[in-house]
Amino acid sequence: MQLFFNPNITTETTQITFEKEESKHIVRVLRKKEGDMLHITNGKGFLFFAEISIPNDKKCVAVITRFEEKKRNRDYYLHVAIAPTKNNDRLEWFLEKATEIGIDEITPIICENSERKVVKIERLSKIVQSAMKQSLQFTIPKLNNPIKFSEFINQDFNSELFIAHCEEGTDKHFLKNSITPKSNYTILIGPEGDFSTGEIKESLSNNFKPISLGENRLRTETAGLNVVQSISFVHQ
Amino acid sequence: MQLFFNPNITTETTQITFEKEESKHIVRVLRKKEGDMLHITNGKGFLFFAEISIPNDKKCVAVITRFEEKKRNRDYYLHVAIAPTKNNDRLEWFLEKATEIGIDEITPIICENSERKVVKIERLSKIVQSAMKQSLQFTIPKLNNPIKFSEFINQDFNSELFIAHCEEGTDKHFLKNSITPKSNYTILIGPEGDFSTGEIKESLSNNFKPISLGENRLRTETAGLNVVQSISFVHQ
Repeated sequence: MQLFFNPNITTETTQITFEKEESKHIVRVLRKKEGDMLHITNGKGFLFFAEISIPNDKKCVAVITRFEEKKRNRDYYLHVAIAPTKNNDRLEWFLEKATEIGIDEITPIICENSERKVVKIERLSKIVQSAMKQSLQFTIPKLNNPIKFSEFINQDFNSELFIAHCEEGTDKHFLKNSITPKSNYTILIGPEGDFSTGEIKESLSNNFKPISLGENRLRTETAGLNVVQSISFVHQ
Repeated sequence: MQLFFNPNITTETTQITFEKEESKHIVRVLRKKEGDMLHITNGKGFLFFAEISIPNDKKCVAVITRFEEKKRNRDYYLHVAIAPTKNNDRLEWFLEKATEIGIDEITPIICENSERKVVKIERLSKIVQSAMKQSLQFTIPKLNNPIKFSEFINQDFNSELFIAHCEEGTDKHFLKNSITPKSNYTILIGPEGDFSTGEIKESLSNNFKPISLGENRLRTETAGLNVVQSISFVHQ
Protein backbone atom coordinates (compact mmCIF):
# COMPACT_ATOMS: atom_id res chain seq x y z
CA MET A 1 0.00 0.00 0.00
CA GLN A 2 1.27 3.45 -0.96
CA LEU A 3 0.19 6.24 1.34
CA PHE A 4 -0.09 9.90 0.33
CA PHE A 5 -0.02 12.88 2.65
CA ASN A 6 -2.15 16.00 2.50
CA PRO A 7 -2.47 17.99 5.72
CA ASN A 8 -5.39 20.04 4.42
CA ILE A 9 -7.93 17.25 3.98
CA THR A 10 -10.68 17.16 6.59
CA THR A 11 -13.60 14.78 7.01
CA GLU A 12 -15.62 17.45 5.11
CA THR A 13 -13.38 17.38 2.04
CA THR A 14 -15.03 15.81 -1.02
CA GLN A 15 -12.33 16.18 -3.66
CA ILE A 16 -8.61 16.95 -3.78
CA THR A 17 -6.24 18.22 -6.43
CA PHE A 18 -2.65 17.07 -6.16
CA GLU A 19 0.15 19.54 -6.76
CA LYS A 20 2.43 19.16 -9.73
CA GLU A 21 5.10 16.88 -8.32
CA GLU A 22 2.69 14.39 -6.77
CA SER A 23 0.43 14.46 -9.84
CA LYS A 24 3.41 13.51 -11.97
CA HIS A 25 4.30 10.73 -9.51
CA ILE A 26 0.76 9.34 -9.48
CA VAL A 27 0.16 9.47 -13.22
CA ARG A 28 3.61 8.99 -14.73
CA VAL A 29 5.42 6.80 -12.18
CA LEU A 30 2.59 4.83 -10.60
CA ARG A 31 0.64 4.86 -13.90
CA LYS A 32 -2.65 5.45 -12.10
CA LYS A 33 -5.74 5.73 -14.29
CA GLU A 34 -9.21 7.21 -13.91
CA GLY A 35 -11.11 5.17 -11.34
CA ASP A 36 -8.01 3.93 -9.51
CA MET A 37 -8.06 4.30 -5.73
CA LEU A 38 -5.52 6.26 -3.68
CA HIS A 39 -4.85 6.14 0.06
CA ILE A 40 -4.24 9.52 1.66
CA THR A 41 -3.67 10.61 5.25
CA ASN A 42 -3.90 14.10 6.64
CA GLY A 43 -1.41 13.25 9.37
CA LYS A 44 -4.11 13.89 11.94
CA GLY A 45 -5.22 10.30 12.43
CA PHE A 46 -7.36 9.82 9.34
CA LEU A 47 -7.05 7.61 6.26
CA PHE A 48 -8.96 8.80 3.20
CA PHE A 49 -9.88 6.67 0.18
CA ALA A 50 -9.95 8.69 -3.03
CA GLU A 51 -10.89 7.69 -6.57
CA ILE A 52 -8.99 9.36 -9.39
CA SER A 53 -11.36 11.42 -11.54
CA ILE A 54 -8.83 13.35 -13.62
CA PRO A 55 -5.49 11.53 -14.10
CA ASN A 56 -3.69 14.70 -15.19
CA ASP A 57 0.07 14.51 -14.66
CA LYS A 58 0.25 18.19 -13.70
CA LYS A 59 -2.99 18.46 -11.77
CA CYS A 60 -4.36 15.07 -10.76
CA VAL A 61 -7.83 15.19 -9.22
CA ALA A 62 -9.40 12.55 -6.97
CA VAL A 63 -12.81 12.26 -5.31
CA ILE A 64 -12.85 11.17 -1.69
CA THR A 65 -15.20 8.23 -1.37
CA ARG A 66 -14.80 7.42 2.34
CA PHE A 67 -12.50 7.78 5.32
CA GLU A 68 -11.46 5.82 8.40
CA GLU A 69 -10.28 7.21 11.70
CA LYS A 70 -6.91 5.65 12.53
CA LYS A 71 -6.25 6.59 16.13
CA ARG A 72 -2.61 6.12 17.06
CA ASN A 73 -2.68 3.35 19.61
CA ARG A 74 0.09 4.62 21.82
CA ASP A 75 -0.25 5.10 25.55
CA TYR A 76 2.55 7.62 26.01
CA TYR A 77 3.71 10.93 24.56
CA LEU A 78 7.38 11.36 23.67
CA HIS A 79 9.02 14.69 22.99
CA VAL A 80 12.72 14.60 22.12
CA ALA A 81 14.69 17.85 22.12
CA ILE A 82 17.89 17.19 20.23
CA ALA A 83 20.86 19.32 19.25
CA PRO A 84 21.35 19.48 15.46
CA THR A 85 24.33 17.39 14.39
CA LYS A 86 27.30 18.97 12.65
CA ASN A 87 26.58 16.69 9.71
CA ASN A 88 22.98 17.29 8.58
CA ASP A 89 22.51 13.70 7.41
CA ARG A 90 22.75 12.47 10.97
CA LEU A 91 19.91 14.64 12.25
CA GLU A 92 17.83 13.75 9.19
CA TRP A 93 18.56 10.11 9.82
CA PHE A 94 17.36 10.51 13.40
CA LEU A 95 14.13 12.12 12.22
CA GLU A 96 13.44 9.32 9.74
CA LYS A 97 14.10 6.53 12.21
CA ALA A 98 12.39 8.19 15.18
CA THR A 99 9.29 8.69 13.04
CA GLU A 100 9.35 5.09 11.85
CA ILE A 101 9.61 3.73 15.38
CA GLY A 102 7.31 6.27 16.99
CA ILE A 103 7.74 9.78 18.33
CA ASP A 104 5.22 12.55 19.00
CA GLU A 105 7.22 15.76 19.07
CA ILE A 106 10.72 16.86 18.09
CA THR A 107 12.48 20.14 18.90
CA PRO A 108 15.95 21.04 17.61
CA ILE A 109 17.76 22.74 20.51
CA ILE A 110 20.72 25.04 19.98
CA CYS A 111 23.30 24.42 22.71
CA GLU A 112 26.55 26.11 23.75
CA ASN A 113 28.56 23.37 22.06
CA SER A 114 26.37 23.17 18.96
CA GLU A 115 28.53 23.59 15.87
CA ARG A 116 25.38 23.88 13.78
CA LYS A 117 23.02 26.62 14.83
CA VAL A 118 20.87 26.78 11.70
CA VAL A 119 18.34 24.11 10.72
CA LYS A 120 16.24 23.88 7.55
CA ILE A 121 12.85 22.96 9.00
CA GLU A 122 11.15 22.55 5.58
CA ARG A 123 13.64 19.88 4.59
CA LEU A 124 13.35 18.13 7.94
CA SER A 125 9.56 18.12 7.81
CA LYS A 126 9.67 16.51 4.36
CA ILE A 127 11.75 13.71 5.89
CA VAL A 128 9.26 13.26 8.71
CA GLN A 129 6.40 13.17 6.19
CA SER A 130 7.95 10.48 4.02
CA ALA A 131 8.92 8.38 7.04
CA MET A 132 5.34 8.56 8.27
CA LYS A 133 4.01 7.50 4.86
CA GLN A 134 6.62 4.80 4.45
CA SER A 135 5.86 3.26 7.85
CA LEU A 136 2.11 3.48 7.22
CA GLN A 137 1.25 5.80 10.06
CA PHE A 138 -1.57 8.32 10.01
CA THR A 139 -0.42 10.83 12.60
CA ILE A 140 2.53 13.05 11.86
CA PRO A 141 5.00 13.92 14.62
CA LYS A 142 5.10 17.60 15.56
CA LEU A 143 8.34 19.21 14.40
CA ASN A 144 9.06 22.47 16.21
CA ASN A 145 11.30 25.34 15.15
CA PRO A 146 14.80 25.41 16.62
CA ILE A 147 15.04 27.04 20.03
CA LYS A 148 17.89 27.96 22.37
CA PHE A 149 18.59 25.41 25.10
CA SER A 150 17.78 27.58 28.10
CA GLU A 151 14.69 28.98 26.43
CA PHE A 152 13.53 25.42 25.89
CA ILE A 153 14.10 24.06 29.39
CA ASN A 154 12.50 27.09 31.04
CA GLN A 155 9.07 26.29 29.58
CA ASP A 156 6.29 24.75 31.67
CA PHE A 157 6.24 21.03 31.04
CA ASN A 158 3.52 18.56 31.81
CA SER A 159 5.81 15.56 31.46
CA GLU A 160 8.64 13.58 33.01
CA LEU A 161 11.88 15.41 32.24
CA PHE A 162 15.22 13.78 31.41
CA ILE A 163 18.62 14.85 30.18
CA ALA A 164 21.05 12.40 28.58
CA HIS A 165 24.46 13.95 29.15
CA CYS A 166 27.89 12.32 29.18
CA GLU A 167 29.45 14.16 32.13
CA GLU A 168 30.70 12.01 34.98
CA GLY A 169 29.67 12.60 38.56
CA THR A 170 25.98 13.40 38.65
CA ASP A 171 24.12 10.34 39.82
CA LYS A 172 22.49 8.89 36.71
CA HIS A 173 20.00 6.06 36.33
CA PHE A 174 19.12 4.00 33.30
CA LEU A 175 16.09 5.30 31.45
CA LYS A 176 14.23 2.05 32.11
CA ASN A 177 14.52 2.59 35.86
CA SER A 178 13.65 6.26 35.68
CA ILE A 179 10.39 6.45 33.75
CA THR A 180 6.81 5.87 34.83
CA PRO A 181 5.17 3.86 32.02
CA LYS A 182 2.20 5.35 30.15
CA SER A 183 3.28 8.90 30.85
CA ASN A 184 4.55 11.94 28.94
CA TYR A 185 8.30 12.30 28.48
CA THR A 186 10.55 15.16 27.43
CA ILE A 187 14.13 14.08 26.84
CA LEU A 188 17.15 16.26 26.05
CA ILE A 189 19.88 14.95 23.71
CA GLY A 190 23.07 17.01 23.46
CA PRO A 191 25.43 17.98 20.63
CA GLU A 192 28.68 16.26 19.64
CA GLY A 193 30.54 18.17 22.35
CA ASP A 194 27.90 17.24 24.96
CA PHE A 195 25.93 19.77 26.99
CA SER A 196 28.04 22.35 28.79
CA THR A 197 28.43 22.03 32.57
CA GLY A 198 26.29 25.16 32.89
CA GLU A 199 23.52 23.68 30.75
CA ILE A 200 23.55 20.47 32.77
CA LYS A 201 23.34 22.44 36.06
CA GLU A 202 20.51 24.57 34.68
CA SER A 203 18.54 21.54 33.48
CA LEU A 204 18.90 19.76 36.82
CA SER A 205 17.64 22.83 38.66
CA ASN A 206 14.69 22.75 36.22
CA ASN A 207 13.88 19.23 37.40
CA PHE A 208 15.40 17.33 34.47
CA LYS A 209 16.70 13.98 35.73
CA PRO A 210 20.05 12.78 34.38
CA ILE A 211 19.88 9.43 32.60
CA SER A 212 22.46 7.01 31.30
CA LEU A 213 22.04 5.30 27.94
CA GLY A 214 24.65 2.66 28.68
CA GLU A 215 28.40 2.24 28.68
CA ASN A 216 29.27 3.10 25.10
CA ARG A 217 29.87 6.62 23.89
CA LEU A 218 26.95 7.19 21.51
CA ARG A 219 26.73 9.72 18.72
CA THR A 220 24.05 12.39 19.12
CA GLU A 221 21.66 10.78 16.64
CA THR A 222 22.25 7.31 18.08
CA ALA A 223 21.50 8.56 21.59
CA GLY A 224 18.33 10.16 20.25
CA LEU A 225 17.13 6.99 18.60
CA ASN A 226 18.17 5.01 21.65
CA VAL A 227 15.61 6.82 23.82
CA VAL A 228 12.88 6.63 21.16
CA GLN A 229 13.41 2.89 20.80
CA SER A 230 13.67 2.32 24.55
CA ILE A 231 10.47 4.20 25.39
CA SER A 232 8.68 2.35 22.59
CA PHE A 233 9.99 -0.97 23.88
CA VAL A 234 8.81 -0.31 27.44
CA HIS A 235 5.28 0.18 26.13
CA GLN A 236 5.14 -2.86 23.84
CA MET B 1 40.10 10.10 23.92
CA GLN B 2 40.96 8.95 20.39
CA LEU B 3 41.16 5.21 19.94
CA PHE B 4 43.19 3.47 17.24
CA PHE B 5 42.64 -0.04 15.95
CA ASN B 6 45.24 -2.63 15.09
CA PRO B 7 44.07 -6.25 15.06
CA ASN B 8 47.62 -7.61 15.03
CA ILE B 9 48.79 -6.32 18.40
CA THR B 10 49.08 -8.94 21.13
CA THR B 11 50.11 -8.66 24.76
CA GLU B 12 53.57 -9.71 23.52
CA THR B 13 53.91 -6.81 21.08
CA THR B 14 56.51 -4.22 22.14
CA GLN B 15 56.37 -1.75 19.26
CA ILE B 16 54.09 -0.96 16.33
CA THR B 17 54.49 0.81 13.03
CA PHE B 18 51.40 2.52 11.64
CA GLU B 19 50.60 2.22 7.95
CA LYS B 20 50.75 5.27 5.73
CA GLU B 21 47.23 6.62 6.10
CA GLU B 22 47.16 6.38 9.89
CA SER B 23 50.70 7.74 10.20
CA LYS B 24 49.64 10.78 8.23
CA HIS B 25 46.57 11.18 10.42
CA ILE B 26 48.59 10.91 13.64
CA VAL B 27 51.41 13.23 12.64
CA ARG B 28 49.78 15.70 10.23
CA VAL B 29 46.19 15.90 11.49
CA LEU B 30 46.56 15.18 15.20
CA ARG B 31 50.02 16.84 15.27
CA LYS B 32 51.39 14.14 17.57
CA LYS B 33 55.05 14.49 18.57
CA GLU B 34 57.72 12.15 19.87
CA GLY B 35 56.80 11.06 23.38
CA ASP B 36 53.05 11.60 22.92
CA MET B 37 50.80 8.73 24.03
CA LEU B 38 48.37 6.86 21.78
CA HIS B 39 45.50 4.56 22.75
CA ILE B 40 45.16 1.47 20.59
CA THR B 41 42.82 -1.53 20.75
CA ASN B 42 43.26 -4.84 18.98
CA GLY B 43 39.49 -5.37 18.94
CA LYS B 44 40.01 -8.43 21.11
CA GLY B 45 39.29 -6.81 24.46
CA PHE B 46 42.61 -5.05 25.05
CA LEU B 47 43.61 -1.39 25.30
CA PHE B 48 47.27 -0.65 24.62
CA PHE B 49 49.15 2.52 25.61
CA ALA B 50 51.88 3.41 23.15
CA GLU B 51 54.44 6.23 23.18
CA ILE B 52 55.43 7.71 19.83
CA SER B 53 59.13 7.10 19.17
CA ILE B 54 59.29 8.11 15.49
CA PRO B 55 56.62 10.69 14.47
CA ASN B 56 57.07 9.98 10.76
CA ASP B 57 54.03 10.93 8.68
CA LYS B 58 54.49 7.95 6.37
CA LYS B 59 55.66 5.40 8.92
CA CYS B 60 54.88 6.46 12.49
CA VAL B 61 56.38 4.20 15.13
CA ALA B 62 55.21 3.84 18.74
CA VAL B 63 56.48 1.78 21.67
CA ILE B 64 53.88 -0.05 23.72
CA THR B 65 54.38 0.87 27.37
CA ARG B 66 51.50 -1.06 28.94
CA PHE B 67 48.10 -2.60 28.29
CA GLU B 68 44.80 -3.14 30.08
CA GLU B 69 42.32 -5.93 29.53
CA LYS B 70 38.92 -4.42 28.77
CA LYS B 71 36.48 -7.30 28.98
CA ARG B 72 33.18 -6.49 27.32
CA ASN B 73 30.73 -6.46 30.17
CA ARG B 74 27.79 -7.94 28.31
CA ASP B 75 25.81 -10.95 29.52
CA TYR B 76 24.38 -11.98 26.17
CA TYR B 77 25.54 -12.74 22.63
CA LEU B 78 23.65 -11.21 19.73
CA HIS B 79 24.00 -12.37 16.14
CA VAL B 80 21.91 -10.52 13.56
CA ALA B 81 21.58 -11.99 10.07
CA ILE B 82 20.31 -9.22 7.84
CA ALA B 83 19.52 -8.95 4.14
CA PRO B 84 21.61 -6.27 2.40
CA THR B 85 19.50 -3.22 1.59
CA LYS B 86 19.00 -2.08 -2.00
CA ASN B 87 20.63 1.21 -1.00
CA ASN B 88 24.07 0.43 0.46
CA ASP B 89 23.99 3.40 2.83
CA ARG B 90 21.18 1.82 4.78
CA LEU B 91 23.09 -1.39 5.53
CA GLU B 92 26.20 0.63 6.38
CA TRP B 93 24.12 2.77 8.66
CA PHE B 94 22.82 -0.35 10.39
CA LEU B 95 26.37 -1.62 10.90
CA GLU B 96 27.50 1.68 12.40
CA LYS B 97 24.57 1.99 14.78
CA ALA B 98 24.44 -1.68 15.75
CA THR B 99 28.16 -1.54 16.61
CA GLU B 100 27.70 1.64 18.64
CA ILE B 101 24.84 0.16 20.66
CA GLY B 102 26.28 -3.33 20.93
CA ILE B 103 26.26 -6.39 18.70
CA ASP B 104 28.51 -9.45 18.61
CA GLU B 105 28.09 -10.92 15.14
CA ILE B 106 26.59 -9.83 11.84
CA THR B 107 25.91 -11.94 8.75
CA PRO B 108 24.56 -10.52 5.49
CA ILE B 109 22.02 -13.03 4.18
CA ILE B 110 21.00 -13.21 0.54
CA CYS B 111 17.27 -13.86 0.29
CA GLU B 112 14.85 -14.61 -2.55
CA ASN B 113 13.61 -11.03 -2.52
CA SER B 114 17.05 -9.46 -2.09
CA GLU B 115 17.59 -6.89 -4.83
CA ARG B 116 21.24 -6.65 -3.78
CA LYS B 117 23.15 -9.92 -3.82
CA VAL B 118 26.69 -8.54 -3.68
CA VAL B 119 28.22 -6.96 -0.57
CA LYS B 120 31.63 -5.28 -0.20
CA ILE B 121 32.80 -6.80 3.08
CA GLU B 122 36.01 -4.72 3.24
CA ARG B 123 34.03 -1.49 3.17
CA LEU B 124 31.55 -2.79 5.74
CA SER B 125 34.30 -3.91 8.10
CA LYS B 126 35.88 -0.46 7.94
CA ILE B 127 32.56 0.97 9.08
CA VAL B 128 32.37 -1.50 11.96
CA GLN B 129 35.96 -0.60 12.94
CA SER B 130 35.37 3.13 13.06
CA ALA B 131 32.09 2.71 14.95
CA MET B 132 33.92 0.58 17.54
CA LYS B 133 36.64 3.20 17.90
CA GLN B 134 34.20 6.07 17.97
CA SER B 135 32.08 4.47 20.70
CA LEU B 136 35.21 3.57 22.70
CA GLN B 137 34.77 -0.18 22.63
CA PHE B 138 37.60 -2.69 22.66
CA THR B 139 35.98 -5.74 21.13
CA ILE B 140 35.07 -5.69 17.46
CA PRO B 141 31.88 -7.38 16.26
CA LYS B 142 32.40 -10.37 13.99
CA LEU B 143 31.36 -9.57 10.42
CA ASN B 144 30.79 -12.68 8.34
CA ASN B 145 30.79 -13.08 4.59
CA PRO B 146 27.41 -13.02 2.84
CA ILE B 147 25.63 -16.34 2.76
CA LYS B 148 22.43 -17.66 1.14
CA PHE B 149 19.40 -17.66 3.42
CA SER B 150 18.76 -21.41 3.48
CA GLU B 151 22.45 -22.15 3.87
CA PHE B 152 22.48 -19.85 6.89
CA ILE B 153 19.43 -21.22 8.68
CA ASN B 154 20.49 -24.81 8.18
CA GLN B 155 23.57 -24.40 10.38
CA ASP B 156 23.73 -25.76 13.93
CA PHE B 157 22.94 -22.93 16.32
CA ASN B 158 23.57 -22.76 20.02
CA SER B 159 21.20 -19.83 20.53
CA GLU B 160 17.59 -18.73 20.66
CA LEU B 161 16.38 -18.33 17.06
CA PHE B 162 14.03 -15.63 15.81
CA ILE B 163 12.74 -14.37 12.48
CA ALA B 164 11.25 -10.89 12.10
CA HIS B 165 8.98 -11.18 9.07
CA CYS B 166 6.02 -9.05 8.05
CA GLU B 167 3.64 -11.77 6.83
CA GLU B 168 0.26 -11.95 8.54
CA GLY B 169 -1.10 -15.13 10.04
CA THR B 170 1.72 -16.90 11.81
CA ASP B 171 1.33 -16.32 15.51
CA LYS B 172 3.98 -13.79 16.48
CA HIS B 173 5.07 -12.50 19.85
CA PHE B 174 6.91 -9.36 20.79
CA LEU B 175 10.63 -9.89 21.13
CA LYS B 176 10.48 -8.85 24.79
CA ASN B 177 8.08 -11.70 25.57
CA SER B 178 10.01 -14.23 23.50
CA ILE B 179 13.59 -14.07 24.74
CA THR B 180 15.23 -15.61 27.78
CA PRO B 181 17.51 -12.88 29.21
CA LYS B 182 21.27 -13.51 29.41
CA SER B 183 21.22 -15.93 26.53
CA ASN B 184 22.51 -16.16 22.94
CA TYR B 185 20.27 -14.87 20.16
CA THR B 186 20.28 -15.27 16.41
CA ILE B 187 17.77 -13.00 14.68
CA LEU B 188 16.85 -12.88 10.98
CA ILE B 189 15.97 -9.54 9.35
CA GLY B 190 14.56 -9.67 5.82
CA PRO B 191 14.98 -7.56 2.68
CA GLU B 192 12.76 -4.72 1.45
CA GLY B 193 10.35 -7.24 -0.08
CA ASP B 194 10.27 -9.28 3.15
CA PHE B 195 11.19 -12.96 3.36
CA SER B 196 9.39 -15.20 0.87
CA THR B 197 6.64 -17.48 2.16
CA GLY B 198 8.96 -20.40 1.47
CA GLU B 199 11.77 -18.87 3.49
CA ILE B 200 9.44 -18.19 6.41
CA LYS B 201 8.17 -21.79 6.33
CA GLU B 202 11.72 -23.15 6.16
CA SER B 203 12.88 -20.99 9.08
CA LEU B 204 9.95 -22.05 11.25
CA SER B 205 10.67 -25.71 10.57
CA ASN B 206 14.26 -24.92 11.60
CA ASN B 207 12.97 -23.72 14.99
CA PHE B 208 13.12 -19.99 14.31
CA LYS B 209 10.31 -18.27 16.23
CA PRO B 210 8.42 -15.46 14.48
CA ILE B 211 8.58 -12.13 16.30
CA SER B 212 6.78 -8.83 15.89
CA LEU B 213 8.65 -5.54 16.16
CA GLY B 214 5.49 -3.50 16.60
CA GLU B 215 2.71 -2.00 14.51
CA ASN B 216 4.63 0.20 12.11
CA ARG B 217 6.12 -1.03 8.86
CA LEU B 218 9.86 -0.72 9.48
CA ARG B 219 12.60 -0.49 6.89
CA THR B 220 15.11 -3.35 6.88
CA GLU B 221 17.83 -1.38 8.64
CA THR B 222 15.38 0.06 11.16
CA ALA B 223 14.10 -3.41 12.00
CA GLY B 224 17.69 -4.56 12.43
CA LEU B 225 18.57 -1.76 14.79
CA ASN B 226 15.26 -2.25 16.57
CA VAL B 227 16.29 -5.74 17.69
CA VAL B 228 19.82 -4.65 18.62
CA GLN B 229 18.47 -1.83 20.75
CA SER B 230 15.74 -3.97 22.30
CA ILE B 231 18.07 -6.80 23.31
CA SER B 232 20.49 -4.25 24.75
CA PHE B 233 17.68 -2.57 26.66
CA VAL B 234 16.47 -5.83 28.20
CA HIS B 235 19.96 -6.39 29.63
CA GLN B 236 20.50 -2.88 31.03
